[in-house]
Amino acid sequence: MSQLSHQIQLLRRPSGLPAPDDFTLQAVALPEPQVGEVLVANQWLSVDPYMRGRMSEAKSYVPPFALNAPLEGGAIGTVLASRHPGFKVGDRVSSMLGWRDSFVAKGEQLTRLPATDLPPQLFLGALGMPGMTAWAGLHQVAKLQAGETLLVSAASGAVGTMAVQLAKRVGAKVIGSTGSADKVAYLKTLGADAVINYRETPDLDAELARLAPEGIQVYFENVGGAMLEAALNHMALHGRIVLCGLIEQYNSNGEASGPRNLAQVIRKRILIQGLLVSDHWQHYGAFLAEAIPAFEAGALQSEETVSQGLASMPQAFIGLFQGRNTGKMLVKLD
Amino acid sequence: MSQLSHQIQLLRRPSGLPAPDDFTLQAVALPEPQVGEVLVANQWLSVDPYMRGRMSEAKSYVPPFALNAPLEGGAIGTVLASRHPGFKVGDRVSSMLGWRDSFVAKGEQLTRLPATDLPPQLFLGALGMPGMTAWAGLHQVAKLQAGETLLVSAASGAVGTMAVQLAKRVGAKVIGSTGSADKVAYLKTLGADAVINYRETPDLDAELARLAPEGIQVYFENVGGAMLEAALNHMALHGRIVLCGLIEQYNSNGEASGPRNLAQVIRKRILIQGLLVSDHWQHYGAFLAEAIPAFEAGALQSEETVSQGLASMPQAFIGLFQGRNTGKMLVKLD
Repeated sequence: MSQLSHQIQLLRRPSGLPAPDDFTLQAVALPEPQVGEVLVANQWLSVDPYMRGRMSEAKSYVPPFALNAPLEGGAIGTVLASRHPGFKVGDRVSSMLGWRDSFVAKGEQLTRLPATDLPPQLFLGALGMPGMTAWAGLHQVAKLQAGETLLVSAASGAVGTMAVQLAKRVGAKVIGSTGSADKVAYLKTLGADAVINYRETPDLDAELARLAPEGIQVYFENVGGAMLEAALNHMALHGRIVLCGLIEQYNSNGEASGPRNLAQVIRKRILIQGLLVSDHWQHYGAFLAEAIPAFEAGALQSEETVSQGLASMPQAFIGLFQGRNTGKMLVKLD
Repeated sequence: MSQLSHQIQLLRRPSGLPAPDDFTLQAVALPEPQVGEVLVANQWLSVDPYMRGRMSEAKSYVPPFALNAPLEGGAIGTVLASRHPGFKVGDRVSSMLGWRDSFVAKGEQLTRLPATDLPPQLFLGALGMPGMTAWAGLHQVAKLQAGETLLVSAASGAVGTMAVQLAKRVGAKVIGSTGSADKVAYLKTLGADAVINYRETPDLDAELARLAPEGIQVYFENVGGAMLEAALNHMALHGRIVLCGLIEQYNSNGEASGPRNLAQVIRKRILIQGLLVSDHWQHYGAFLAEAIPAFEAGALQSEETVSQGLASMPQAFIGLFQGRNTGKMLVKLD
């Protein structure tokens, strides 16, 4: 008796903002697990902006998704059957085999979650790739110091909320940027010293001059566009920009414009460093050693925006680019 | 009996490309040197792109030039009279008191040239600020290694010609970019492995793909614009960009466009570092220890474009932005 796997496939490559019709929900029969394989049922699927890049044909740092094959992404699930000595029924595992409700995979494709009573979906967000991205950007790349001023764009997103909180733990002054009054209020509860609602701030330059009169030492950049230009104007001498994301460009079909004021990089001897978390996993243990106890003690918080059911995954993904999430965007399976 | 100093003053702030009428030649009486002061006659004036920034009112890394006061810049001269114990008549000195044929200054504003039979004007170019800029960019910032591929824009300029030669001494593969067939030929005599004439290369992307199929590890950027976009597309993983100049923008009145493909910085985890030589003068001795013997042995070469007479200084300066120089642009005084 074989089990059915329901999975979201990419039907065609999106042009600009993805549309629901770019995706299709298919049911396929799963094979029986062979020796060394494990059958997993997913409970949580990760919804991440970087996935947009893999939906295009262009070569990026990971190969493009194939059409008419299940999409991939972070997922948390439970072992239903195991023919691998490292996993037993009931184990909680993370994998990159998301966008589907169940799968059969080799044990080597799975990671058992650390022992903790924290909600398992944290390992897709604040304790997973986005949290590790924030930690690596602040500590490994920018080497943020107490007393410095940090600006974070998309501060209410999965990476941003962790960047804000980790920076406050270092003793930095934190300015966030986000797109709604609710998100502004939420970021203040996380400890942000100031928050810009960019949709209601016609003069970003003047606002940064007011909020960071001594200049910005570190800019954690997730967005691009007008905020990057304004930040360049207000960076401090020898400031550092962690270039983590340019979400404003991801659906732009190549019409994105770049910052016109790169001369600031020379004037202020700014460092800009592109960040991909894949360069930094060797420090994941150090990150978890700080972050798990901090979550257990309530000293770090995580917000989730949860969408219900596999069929909602495309719409949740599209919502990322419409600012529909606060904190980590997740899909919960029934 | 007081001596007259002829000096170029800024009459009004240029809009876009400077015009000869933005400048005026004035004669002023020099005071007699007081105790601690020195009278110097300049022989060589330095003509540098960075001076354009100081002609605008906008705050930059150095204050704007004052109107109706002599402009400033590198100069090499000879001591005519000295009331400072550190200088005697006939000493060759460098100063930042260019754009004039003579001046009286405190001894502390002068630097005696190192003892060498090399032409003194080298200390305005290959052995001065531009040469030090190239050396600091390659060694202190990019840490260029043997076997790596370096791309240099404005490769036939004062900084570029030194970057090309210093990189060949390291054992790098060097690709230069310049704007005429003569300059292409000259750069090949300096050892460049390949040279792009950007004016005759409609598809910079394809040309870089052909010349650097394994990618560019280090880009020494003096220009900006289309070459920066093309270079970003062909940078290698973890490539480094030394942002030294953006000469294409200096006269742009703010209409400059930035690179539309900054996403490459994330994909390839590129480092971009703004460079000003002022951060690196503590290493000037190390640079001269390498470069003076290399020039004396004929292992380094310098090209000069020389304009005659103080009155030619504004036109020489404008010529920098029209590609009129190969190597260092200088004005020789009679």
